Formats: sequence, structure tokens, C-alpha cells
Amino acid sequence: MFNKTEENAVRYRRAQSVTKAEEITEKEKKARKSQLDKPCHKPRDSLFSWSSEFTNFTGLVNWGFLMLTIGGLRLCLENFLKYGIRVNPFEWFIVLTGHNEGYSHQYPSVILLIFSVVPAVTCLLIEKAIAVEILSQKLGVSLQIINMVSEISLPVIILYFKGTQFSFVGITTVCTIYLVLFLKLWSYCQTNHWCRLGMKGKQYKNTLRRQSLSAPNWNELVNAEHEQTLEDEKHDFVSAGLVKYPDNLTLKDLFYFLLAPTLCYELNFPRTTRIRKRFLIKRIIEVVFGVNLVMALFQQWMIPSVRNAVDPFSEMGIVKMTERLLKLAVPNHLIWLCFFYLSFHSFLNLMGELLHFADRNFYSDWWNANNISVFWSSWNMPVHLWAVRHVYIPMTEIGYTKGSASIVVFFISAFFHEYLVSVPLQMFRVWAFLGMMAQPPLSVISRVVEKKLGARWGNIIVWSSLILGQPLAIMMYYHDYALAHFAPQQ
Amino acid sequence: MFNKTEENAVRYRRAQSVTKAEEITEKEKKARKSQLDKPCHKPRDSLFSWSSEFTNFTGLVNWGFLMLTIGGLRLCLENFLKYGIRVNPFEWFIVLTGHNEGYSHQYPSVILLIFSVVPAVTCLLIEKAIAVEILSQKLGVSLQIINMVSEISLPVIILYFKGTQFSFVGITTVCTIYLVLFLKLWSYCQTNHWCRLGMKGKQYKNTLRRQSLSAPNWNELVNAEHEQTLEDEKHDFVSAGLVKYPDNLTLKDLFYFLLAPTLCYELNFPRTTRIRKRFLIKRIIEVVFGVNLVMALFQQWMIPSVRNAVDPFSEMGIVKMTERLLKLAVPNHLIWLCFFYLSFHSFLNLMGELLHFADRNFYSDWWNANNISVFWSSWNMPVHLWAVRHVYIPMTEIGYTKGSASIVVFFISAFFHEYLVSVPLQMFRVWAFLGMMAQPPLSVISRVVEKKLGARWGNIIVWSSLILGQPLAIMMYYHDYALAHFAPQQ
Repeated sequence: MFNKTEENAVRYRRAQSVTKAEEITEKEKKARKSQLDKPCHKPRDSLFSWSSEFTNFTGLVNWGFLMLTIGGLRLCLENFLKYGIRVNPFEWFIVLTGHNEGYSHQYPSVILLIFSVVPAVTCLLIEKAIAVEILSQKLGVSLQIINMVSEISLPVIILYFKGTQFSFVGITTVCTIYLVLFLKLWSYCQTNHWCRLGMKGKQYKNTLRRQSLSAPNWNELVNAEHEQTLEDEKHDFVSAGLVKYPDNLTLKDLFYFLLAPTLCYELNFPRTTRIRKRFLIKRIIEVVFGVNLVMALFQQWMIPSVRNAVDPFSEMGIVKMTERLLKLAVPNHLIWLCFFYLSFHSFLNLMGELLHFADRNFYSDWWNANNISVFWSSWNMPVHLWAVRHVYIPMTEIGYTKGSASIVVFFISAFFHEYLVSVPLQMFRVWAFLGMMAQPPLSVISRVVEKKLGARWGNIIVWSSLILGQPLAIMMYYHDYALAHFAPQQ
Repeated sequence: MFNKTEENAVRYRRAQSVTKAEEITEKEKKARKSQLDKPCHKPRDSLFSWSSEFTNFTGLVNWGFLMLTIGGLRLCLENFLKYGIRVNPFEWFIVLTGHNEGYSHQYPSVILLIFSVVPAVTCLLIEKAIAVEILSQKLGVSLQIINMVSEISLPVIILYFKGTQFSFVGITTVCTIYLVLFLKLWSYCQTNHWCRLGMKGKQYKNTLRRQSLSAPNWNELVNAEHEQTLEDEKHDFVSAGLVKYPDNLTLKDLFYFLLAPTLCYELNFPRTTRIRKRFLIKRIIEVVFGVNLVMALFQQWMIPSVRNAVDPFSEMGIVKMTERLLKLAVPNHLIWLCFFYLSFHSFLNLMGELLHFADRNFYSDWWNANNISVFWSSWNMPVHLWAVRHVYIPMTEIGYTKGSASIVVFFISAFFHEYLVSVPLQMFRVWAFLGMMAQPPLSVISRVVEKKLGARWGNIIVWSSLILGQPLAIMMYYHDYALAHFAPQQ
């Protein structure tokens, strides 16, 4: 029992600095051994001294893990003692549907969600019309743009000009769905446009080829050869089961794309051959359990913290403000983590599995991101892929620089963040917009930190901005919201 | 900006399970490439899916570190907001000396500390008397035992039978010093005893040798040879500068041992040749700064938590009790960590450096301990070494089993823990004793955990028992203390 540690202790200790001075001679050693007092000391350094060269602190990782667990458990208990149990599943239903709010038995959110089919079908009809050349290219594209702009403006118009009352969660859902639909239709139209341009290019090349090869004796031979090539090409597509423009312009194809967990349209998505039942069941359980967990955390932890936070925020005492911000940061961050896993892993994988959609690249390893731009290009892969394919690359192809293309991407992203926050809150502040537009300069700073202090500190900057940035924005909005709704009129 | 992550994503993703089913043929790939819709999807798994075989979560270590920092910062701010600033250096002085408590201007602690020289010198005198054979071996050893027992009982006697009033910190210091002195004197007497036994054994052997070699013609030759050997031996010791019994029985040697950072006496301690000034200054700064930090943490964080804890502890509501225990656990643990570093690294190294004491093995790497017995044999090396050298090994040499020797070590340790707590608190409860005696069974459990669940979980058990066990004992004592002093008499 004692010997083992004794050995370890001896093994680790190379008491260099203390020993160096007094190299014990062999003779002295022998003399010491022959002593009768059973000597038990020898020159060596303490482990925390640099000179001991001891570096094994792996146990401290477990310590950190335990302290986090204990802290979390205590926070949980404290919360229950302070606020009692606030989780109320029935309330979710009310909030979700807008029912029981007195003024509305019309479920405007549900109606708007169903109505979203109309712009989608309109988009398909316009595409079809362009394909069969009822509409000219130019007119068609203009109609598509009008269709998309009116689609994205619809919630705003209904909310402001019709003055319909929505529940908060209801209108948030509507805005999210309408935004996703907007991005998907953009991708759909642009991809179809590429196909048309490509076809025209090919036809043009073929025409050129035929004209140049119009020598009489070669003519038939080459013509036959060309027909053969076209035939081959067609056969290849059919054998691989690949759809070709304009055969893709069907309702079934459009709705598959609208439901599929991606924002980028292509004619032939990679597909899986079967639905893995265990995988599907796991994801369903995660979604059902996870939504309830997030809701519970929100009611139990987030709402009280935000309510508590607003009072000192108006008084603007810096210490109390910081304390409240930090207090809000922890539940907010945990809810965000749950939300991330729930949406990007459980829900999107569930949809993918159901639809045989094989590309599950919904997120990259953003938790290892060493600077902020890496984080933004890895946490939300569907949006990232969309931004690269439909904004960044087209812009650089036209001739813009990479820098300005990035700025435009961030600008569009900032605009849609603001859209998702301002419309449901019915407050046109610019905190979300500014928060997003602060990312490019922050990203420069984090890249400098990464270069000067190493990857570890870059990663810490990314995490800090994530943990502290969000609650700051939330408190800004809630502060304004509380001022607008609860403050005494002056 | 985008390409880098894209590459990373591709590198990490080997979408096996999704891909396996639909190995894309070369032909299909070619067909896809010739498509006009710029396909951007390919079959791959999400990183959290087991089938992705992705394991790089190093960023989460930084996350844990940040969450701990943020939690700590918030606790700190909350504490200041709740309790104001309670740090009061003047109060330390009062508590330390017992001054200003009204009833005592005699500084009994200081007097007792000075008086501790008396049993030490008595011990030396008895040893000397045995060495020069004024006292018989047996009588001498009995006198030593009486001396040591009266030394360790002195604080108790003064406190209970004289009824002297001590400050809490004062009496704690006295008890600690008297306990250390007791262990040192034990080691001193036992080591000298070994030397005497060894000398006698040698003399006996020499006598035997002389008798057996008493053949007339060999006699002188051998005698001369033997004298030469003795002479050689003596010369060896002198040349190596080693002291031999009974030359060690001096005041200077005794006081060096009493001040040296070890509990085990030996005649020739390994020494350093010089005092490293930078090292010394660092340790002095650590001691001065660290003592203030611990005091501040204690006043600001620990005392309010314990005070808050006692109320719900009497009412014994299990949820509130757990919450308070966890709340107390964090400051208690941090103070213990500070105290550990301060005593075992800063202070003992400071003493070692000042006294040219070369063996700085004051602690081993207990933070990596995978079971509780390893922890106990590595966190406090002076006591561990003392227990092994003066209790464990002598007991096994007499013929006891290793198991019973370990139990005796834990029993003695438990007794002295109780001594250090009960005497200052003037409450003879058995919580500390029971806490120590619970260690052997706990150690068996932790070893089973280590074997079944692996070293990591063994280490977690060790940390948990450390983080949660101490505040539990503290609350037990404070609960009893509060009941005895503040509770309404029935």
C-alpha cells in the first residue's frame, strides 16, 4: 500500500537543482548506508518547483469536470428553491398556437405556414414557363425576384399593416420558415438558371461545331458521330438515374427539396438506400425529449434571470450589471448548446433519414475553431454552403474581391438575423444587426490573438464571444422591450 | 476564409455508414461532374454520429476552463453584492493573539508556544542520560514516554483544568505545534534507540569475534586487524563529515531537527550548499500573499456560507441541505487547495531553503491518485514518511500483517485529526475521527471502482470524497457548535 506511491514519488523526482551542488560520493553513500539511524531523506525538489520538471497534472482535468458538475447541481437546486417549479407544458401549447390569448381564435401563424405553399408553387410555375419559353428569360427572372421579395415581406406586412395579433413563438416560427423558404427558392431559381445557361452554351457549341465541319464528304460521318455522342450522354444519365433539366421541374422534386435538410438545390441529391430504424428512433426520442428540456430550461432558468437582469440594467450599476450578465450567460449558453444539438444534429438528421437524404454535413467542428471566421463558417453548414455557393462564389466570378464578397455575406447574414429578431419582437432596434456586423472586425482581432498567443487562446476568444455576446444582445433587446412595455410613461 | 474549414470538414468526415450502401461508381461520378447545376452535396455522416468516427473535441477543454472562470467571477461578484467587503486584516491580529477579547491580556497561546522548548530539552537530557548510562535503557524509555504524553496533553490540561480562555486560532496553532513536536520527539527517541541497539549489536558481534579467534598464535595479528577495521570505519565517517551516535545528542542538532521541514529524525540530513535567493524571495512572497488570500477567502466566503448553512441544517430539509452543502463545498475546497500549496510548497520549502535542508519531498502527485489509499499516502509526505518509518515498518517487523499495520496507521491519524479539531472547538464529537476511520472502507470501494470502471473514475471518486467530505464534516461540527452556543435552551 505504501510502497507503490513511494516508487512513483521517486520515479518522478529528479531533484536536479538541489542535488547538483552536492553530488554525493560513492564513499559517502556507503557510509550513509552503514548508519544505524535508518536514514530516509535524500536531496530532491518539490513537484511544483520548476526544477523538478514534473508535468503530470492529468488529474486536474477530472477536477475541472467535477467542479462544473457540482456547480451545475447547486445552481439547479438553488433555482428550484428560489423560484419553485415553473415548468408548465400546457403553457407551451398556448404560446405555440396563440390560443387562449383572448383576441384571436384564428391561428394566424398556422394559416401563414400553410400559405407558404403558394409562393413555392408560383416559383415552380414561373420556372416551367421559362423552360417551355412562354416567358422570356429576363421577364421570368424579374417575376421570380418579385415572388421571393413578396414572400419574405408577407409576415411583416400581415403583422404591421393588417395588425394581426400573433403569439411570440408563433410569429418566430413563421419568420424562420419564411426565411428558410426564401433561401431555398433563391437557390432553386439560381440553379435552374445555371442549367439553362449551360444548355444554351452547349447548343451554341454544337451549332459552331456543325457549321465548322460542313465539308460535304465529312458531313454525314461527323453528324452520325455527334448524334452518337449525344445518345451516349443521354444513356449515361439514364443509366446513372440522373435527372436532367428541365425534367426536374416537377412538384414532387420541388417539395422534396423544400423538406430536405439543405438550402442548396441540385437536380440529383445523393440518396441513401434504406432508413436505419434504430438511428431514426434515437433521433425522434432526442427531438421529443430535447424540445421539452429546452422549454423547461427556458421557463425555469432563463425567464427569471432575464426578468431579474432588467432592473439593474436600467440603473446601470456596472458591478451588478456584470453579475447579472454572467448569471444570464450560463443558462443562455446551455440552452443554446441544447438548441444547437437538437436542431442541427437530431432534427436535421431525422429529416435526412426520413427523406433518404445522404449528405448529413449540418455542422463542422466549430468547437475547435481557433478564430471567429472559422466558427462562422463551420457552425451552420447549410447556411454556410448556401452563402458560398449562391453569394460568395458568384460574386468572385463576376470580379469582386474575396474580402468584399465576405463582407456582403456577413451583411446578408446580419440582415436576416435582424429579421428573425426584430419582426417577432416588433421592435426595430439594430442590436442583432450590429452584433453580426461586429463579427468581421472581431474575426480580425481573434486571428491576431491566434497568431500572437497560439491556437488555444484563439479558441478561448471564440468561446468567450459565444458565451458572453449572446446574453448581451438578449439583454439589450429585453431592456428595450421592458422599457417600451412596462416603464412608467413620462 | 471558407476553403480552410471546408478542407477540415472533408478531412474529418469519412461518412462510412451512409456511404457504404451506395458506393458511387466512377461513371456516376463523371456523370455528376458534367451536370450543369453545380452539385454540392455528397454522402457523409454528421460528426456526432458514431459512424463518423470523429473524436476531436479538444476545444471543449477550453470551454470547461471558461465556464469555470465565468462561474467563479460571478460567484465573486454575487458574494460582494450580498455581503459587502468583510475582509478585515485587523481582525486577524485579534483572532491570532486573543488580544482585545476582554478577559485575557496574558496571551496564553504565546506562552504555551514558548513553553514547548521545555519538553524538547527534557527529551534531550533523558537521551543524554541514557547514552552516558546514568539511566538504564528501560527507565529512560519510560521517562521519554511520560515526557511525550505529558507534552501532548498539556494544551488539553491548560484548556480544561485551568480554564484559561484562548482565541480559536491561538489554540489551533498551539495544538498543531504541540502535535508536530510530539511526532518529532517520537521519531527522535526511536531513532536514537535504534542507534543504541545497533551499537550494542556491533559490540556483541565484536566480542563474539574476539572470543572465537582466541587461538594464541593468531591473536595479536587478528586483534591488530580488527583495530584497524574500527579505525577505518571511524575515519570513513569523519571524512564524509557524518555524525555518529552519541555525538548527535546536542542542543544544536535537536533544534535543527525541530525546525527542519520533516518529522523523521536522522543523524545526518542531506544538506544544500547554498541558499538560492530568488527561490527564497518567491517563497516568502507566496507565504505573505497566500496567508492574506486564505484569510480573506475565509472571512468573505466561508463564514457567511457556514452561517447560512446551519439554519436549514437544523430543519433538515434534504434539498436545502444538499444545496447548502454544495454551496459550502466550493469555497471550502478552494481554501483547502490554497492552504495546501501555502503550507506544503511555500512554507516548507521556505524553511528548507533557510535551513539548507535538501529533501523537499513534501507532497507527491496526489492529484493523479486513482484510489483513496494512494491519495492518503501522497498528499502529506512528512506524515506519511513518519507513519511508514515509525509505525508501519516497526509493526510489520514485529510480525503484524500489513493490513493491521495500515489500520493502526489510520487509527493514529484519526486520533490526531480529532485532537486537532476537538480541542480547539472544545467539543468532543467524533466526526473527524469517524471521517478518518471511514477512509479504509472508502479506499476499498475506490479500488473496486478503479478496477471496474478504470483509473479515471477512481480519480473522480478521490476528488469527490475530497470536495464533499470536508464540508460535510465542517457542517457537522458547526451544527453542533451552533446548537451548543446559540440554540434556545429548552
